[in-house]
Amino acid sequence: MRILGIDPGLRTTGFGVIEKEGSRLSYIASGTVTTASGADLPERLKTILVSLTEIIGTYRPECAAIETVFLNVNPSSTLLLGQARGAAICALVGADLAVSEYSALQVKQAVTGHGKAQKKQVQEMVRRLLLLPAPPKSDAADALAVAICHANSFDALRAIHDAASLKPKSSFRIRRGRLVR
Amino acid sequence: MRILGIDPGLRTTGFGVIEKEGSRLSYIASGTVTTASGADLPERLKTILVSLTEIIGTYRPECAAIETVFLNVNPSSTLLLGQARGAAICALVGADLAVSEYSALQVKQAVTGHGKAQKKQVQEMVRRLLLLPAPPKSDAADALAVAICHANSFDALRAIHDAASLKPKSSFRIRRGRLVR
Repeated sequence: MRILGIDPGLRTTGFGVIEKEGSRLSYIASGTVTTASGADLPERLKTILVSLTEIIGTYRPECAAIETVFLNVNPSSTLLLGQARGAAICALVGADLAVSEYSALQVKQAVTGHGKAQKKQVQEMVRRLLLLPAPPKSDAADALAVAICHANSFDALRAIHDAASLKPKSSFRIRRGRLVR
Repeated sequence: MRILGIDPGLRTTGFGVIEKEGSRLSYIASGTVTTASGADLPERLKTILVSLTEIIGTYRPECAAIETVFLNVNPSSTLLLGQARGAAICALVGADLAVSEYSALQVKQAVTGHGKAQKKQVQEMVRRLLLLPAPPKSDAADALAVAICHANSFDALRAIHDAASLKPKSSFRIRRGRLVR
């Protein structure tokens, strides 16, 4: 299962691709998409849309996870960030990826075990969990952390799903049109 | 010149297509894209993206104009609206349309001559300007109004552009590699 994690932003959008085999996670790629602050908004959103679409085409993830964003004190900044996040989600759903959303608290909890961990601690834990030679830069680390968070909850979800789907199977069978307990 | 106007929203996105020939405007199509309030955000954004992409494919506009959005008192609403607007812009730039942005004040000014006009007044003026038998519904009327606003400023822009591009042509020519004044 290949997972694309996104840390959205208007100026810088972090992305991280990891692969999950059983309980093993491995690093595939990570980086940032940067938009020119001088460009107009539609152009900046296009950069996010087109770049993430290219990244999806290159690394072919099977699902995606994106961080929810903070409400800025400045409403105009919230609006700009919202539009950037909308563009990132469009790249994901436009490529028919299922998109899961996680709060910063959930992501930090998942990688460091502590919802209020510092940026450096997230970077260091991402490095350790993915066996990287050095910690990734902050935006890329956050994106990888979202992907790791999703990989973990995917496990949890599948465990629940498997348990639920196994139950009826083990409690009855049908033989020659009759229910056998 | 065929223009697509968009009035963005998470629940309802209005669209309106008009055609401009000289100073004459004519109505092509209008309507709304509605998303299910029960669906999760990525799914709702996908509905906006896919529906507007279909509308662009059907009516083949040559450029687009979109209304800027109000900052809601509730920051969460601002964030949701921002993401919806981001998705609408992605549909436009994804189809390689140039996108112009206008404030509600500019749009109302353009169609009614008054920046603080009521919704009903906008609907009525859109009806008159496009020679419609009845006023369009509010979201569609707003979208048609943005398109009309763009048609008008397009005129203004072209006049400026033509004046600017004519100037050097009339002030010099090149003959046999030499500048002739």
